[in-house]
Formats: sequence, structure tokens, C-alpha cells
Amino acid sequence: MKALQYHSKEKPLILDDLPDPPTSSDRILYEVLASALNHRDVWICQGLYPGIQPKVTLGSDGVVKHNGQHYMINPGLDWGSDPHLPSDSYTILGMPADGTFAEKIALSQEQLFQTPGHLSVFEAAALPLAGLTAYRLLFIRCQLQASDRVCVTGIGGGVALTALQFAVATGCEVWVTSSSINKIKKAVTLGAAGGQLYTEDQWHKKLLKDSGGFDVIIDSAAGDGFSHLIAMANKGARIGIYGGSKGNISNLSPQRIFWKHLTIFGSSMGNASDFRNMVDFVDQNRIVPVVDSIFKLSDFETAFQRMRMGEQFGKIVFDHKK
Amino acid sequence: MKALQYHSKEKPLILDDLPDPPTSSDRILYEVLASALNHRDVWICQGLYPGIQPKVTLGSDGVVKHNGQHYMINPGLDWGSDPHLPSDSYTILGMPADGTFAEKIALSQEQLFQTPGHLSVFEAAALPLAGLTAYRLLFIRCQLQASDRVCVTGIGGGVALTALQFAVATGCEVWVTSSSINKIKKAVTLGAAGGQLYTEDQWHKKLLKDSGGFDVIIDSAAGDGFSHLIAMANKGARIGIYGGSKGNISNLSPQRIFWKHLTIFGSSMGNASDFRNMVDFVDQNRIVPVVDSIFKLSDFETAFQRMRMGEQFGKIVFDHKK
Repeated sequence: MKALQYHSKEKPLILDDLPDPPTSSDRILYEVLASALNHRDVWICQGLYPGIQPKVTLGSDGVVKHNGQHYMINPGLDWGSDPHLPSDSYTILGMPADGTFAEKIALSQEQLFQTPGHLSVFEAAALPLAGLTAYRLLFIRCQLQASDRVCVTGIGGGVALTALQFAVATGCEVWVTSSSINKIKKAVTLGAAGGQLYTEDQWHKKLLKDSGGFDVIIDSAAGDGFSHLIAMANKGARIGIYGGSKGNISNLSPQRIFWKHLTIFGSSMGNASDFRNMVDFVDQNRIVPVVDSIFKLSDFETAFQRMRMGEQFGKIVFDHKK
Repeated sequence: MKALQYHSKEKPLILDDLPDPPTSSDRILYEVLASALNHRDVWICQGLYPGIQPKVTLGSDGVVKHNGQHYMINPGLDWGSDPHLPSDSYTILGMPADGTFAEKIALSQEQLFQTPGHLSVFEAAALPLAGLTAYRLLFIRCQLQASDRVCVTGIGGGVALTALQFAVATGCEVWVTSSSINKIKKAVTLGAAGGQLYTEDQWHKKLLKDSGGFDVIIDSAAGDGFSHLIAMANKGARIGIYGGSKGNISNLSPQRIFWKHLTIFGSSMGNASDFRNMVDFVDQNRIVPVVDSIFKLSDFETAFQRMRMGEQFGKIVFDHKK
């Protein structure tokens, strides 16, 4: 079968002909119809991810076919018995276990969740990891309520867009930030109340004035701008962190944190129950994940380059049948 | 009556003869037996506190006599109806409302809580604000459990010592940090498992190695050292912030926050229910607040100087009958 593997830092990606993955009594072989890129795939290729190993098929998001039905894959493996925390052996598909960027994948049946009927195979492929991460961060960690005013930073990425959609479906007023006015405009068509270019001088003061401050803030940038998010936080606000693309946080006022009774939640991925609840939420609210573009697996260089450049708005999907 | 008032930044403290405080249908006059210093009293004198007004009697902690019984004062005013957050009009005694550094104080009866029988008037005066802050931070915010390994930084201050005592009473293994080996030794006599001088090179690596890492960290320093606390945090750890004496936080890794599923809680003071539960906890566990020293109110300069220099281990108390 064809599979896109990580090989080494020097030559990260090779699309190769490989033997079918091994099966066992509880892991059978499924045909992968579509998959989707995540930032972690790019970071692995740049050597910027923990636990990188050579000759592993990448890809955490995927849709498989089984008995004529489409199923999304929960990419999490070995979360463990504590719903609050993953076990030390928790990983997700696509490193170190072989992932979804292949014609076939061996999975246990409990990883499969039937695709909601309103989703195409490509929209379904766009959902799993971004949906899981956004769901746990918003609802389990930040305890999102309809009355919360929400800020989602860096709109355009999979988790950020899904968080926007989930918060809008909850009934929240949601604002976004981006370096692109086009992405802000697109976010407004998805239900955002408004947005702010974070490249503008005094952007946080403008956004605070326009919005009135935030009860929940969802961020994957961190860096120097994080202290501005804390300044825009209302009393009792919850700030969810799921990434750190702008590096370490600096100039963070402890006084703002304790006087405003803030809570900062770190979160990554989620457990099987979160995945189940996330799929139900998407189903009930008829949420359609945003697909940026669809590539053949053989066009992986173009697809990875698009994500490296941050050009996408929504998920970059691979059509495995093309 | 004699009262110690904040006057101005140039001449902060004046012990003066003043008329008795005004009373009303729901606020009657009580005789203050003892009171205690808090950092906020010092910070007010240095102009380092929000909402400073001239000619206000300082002091948030106090014990009064009523019908032959001793009562501790809950210093909180107007918390409001939301148990999760104080209202915008929430303040505590001693700025802007007149406080406990006086011979008499006008209070509503609901602010009074009977002193547990095992406490002297001075030990009781040492409890209110430190106990309230530590209780809410540990139990309401960080959800402390007996199985948690705890780190309390900067041991010696009122909240830090009370947090140590409350966590030990809960059954936790508690470690402390300090710049003084004597304070660490005293903390061990109060039940701490051990401690670490934060003035030593690589102190955080030593403490991590000795302790094995922390599930709950209670900090009022922030500053450059905060990132070391995050490095010592176990997966799923809760970090409680109630102060920021070392200034803004820098070099804070977002990856550590989300990979370890950390939660950072800001907290300040607490509501009447927290106060009630705190007093019950102290009563049931026979906790004795640590009194560093007892001064006459007329020796206020020496008492304030002792706190400014950070020499104290426990609360600096005023005996109003001396």
C-alpha cells in the first residue's frame, strides 16, 4: 500500500510502497478514504515535537469505510482510566504509532465513530483532532456557557475554527484575531461578532474597547501577546491554552491573575468520552468543519507547504481515492 | 478612641485620638482586643495598592469582645451574590472602610465568627485574612486532596504558613521554599516534609529531585522564578497564585502548560461561606495560627518595619489592651 512516512530530519517525508499494517485479534484493517493535516505533522518534520521516531506513517485525522458506512477515527491511544488526565503511555496516531496518511490502517473497533450524516467524507476527515482538542478545552476545561463572551486567537487553524464554531453553536458572542483581514471576514461569515488584526499597533486596546472584554479566551500563540489577552480578560475569565507558536510567555502580571480571579487551563487532545460527546455535539448542531483545500496524497509537498506558510483557513485534507 | 490611620504617602501612619466610629441600625460598636498586620497594610503605606484613600484606619484582621465572648471578624464587605466571584463593590476592612487598628470598630453582626476555643485572642487575631485567602485558594480553587504533594513558596508569611498548616492537616506531603534556613527548619516543625533555599543555584532542580514533583503549588512571588515552579509541576498540577512580590512572570513555557494539562488559578480573599468553612476547619483540626510577635499599637513603627524587612515567621499581632 502507499503510505506517507516521516523518515529523518534531512529527508522528512517519503511516499512509499509498504506492506499492509499488521493486524491482530483486536485490530483489523480498514481502507482510509480521506485524512487531514495537523500542525503536529509539520512540526514533526521540523524536529519540533517530542518523541519523534523514524519510518512512521504520519497523520492523526482520518475517515475509514466499514460495512458501507463512514467512520471517523479517534486518534487517541491508551488515554487510561483517569478521565482528568492521560496516562503516561497516551499517544495519538501518526507518531509513534502509524497514522492515517496511508491507503490502509489497522485499528481497534473502539476507535471508530460513525460520521454524522450531514458531513461529507472530507468534512468528516477535517474534524477528529481539532474537534477533540477544541471540545475538551472549551467544555471540559473552560466550562463554556452561552453567556460567555469568547475570544479565539489566530483564526484559521483547525482548533481555532472549530472552537469558533462550537462557541457560536453554544450561543456565545465570539471575537477572533488574525494577521489576515480576509480570515477575519471569513470568520464573521461563520458567526463571529467581529475581529481584530493582531498586527496593528495597540490591537488589544482596540479589541477590548470593541468587545467589552472576554470571559473565555482560547489561545495557541502564547509569546509576548499573551499578556495582552490577560489584560482583555473579564473578572473570573478562563483562558485556555492548547499551543505556543509564538514561544514563551513574558511580562505576565500576577496581579491581574489574582485580582481578576482568572484561571489559565492547559489542555491537549482528549479522551474517548470527549470524542463521543464532541461527535454528538457536531451532529446535534449540524456543525460543518471548514475544509480549506483537498489534495491528492501524492501532492503532499504542496499541502505541507501550505500549512507551513499558514495560508490555510480550515483543514487541509487528503483525498485517498484520487 | 486611639486609631492608627493612613494619612498620605509622605507621612503614611499616624496614631491619633479620633471620635468613635458612627453606628447605624445594623452596625454596632465593638471593642477591639487584638489585630494583626498584613502585607497590604505595608503596601498601602508605600502607595502600592489599588484604591488608596487618605485618613482611613488600617487593619483587616481583628478580634472583638461581645457579651463576654471573643469573635473574629470576617474582613470582607459586599462580596455579592455570586459564590464564584466578588462583586465590583467588594472591599475588605482597612481601606477604604475603616479597619481594626483602633480601640473600637463598627460592624454588622454577620461579620462576627466565634473564636474556636483552643485559640488565644492573639492566635485568633492572626487567622482571618490569611486563613480566608489560604482556604479559598487551596480548597475552592485548587481542590486540594490528601493525595496531593504540595509546594508552598516563601514560607514565613501569613497565607503561606496557613496554607502549609491547612495542607498538613489535610494529610498532604508539603514542601516549602524560603531564603532563610531558619524559616525552613521552623516549617518542618509545623509538619513540612522538607524545604529548599531559593537563593541557591539550581534550587528548583534540587527541590524537584528531593520531592519528586508537585500536584499543588501555592505561590505569591511570581517573577522569574515562576517558570521553575511550572517545571516542578506534575501532570495535572494546579498552581495557585495569590500575590506577586517578585513582579511579572517571564520565560513561561506554554508547552509545559498544555502538555502537562496544568491549571493556574488566581485567587484573592474569599466569601462569607469560605470564612465559615475555614473557621470550622481550624476548629476541627485544632490548627493554631503562628504568631511571630506581639506589639502594642503604639509600637506600630517597629511592627511595620519588621514586616517590611520580611523578618517575621507568622503573623505580627497588636495587643490593644497593653
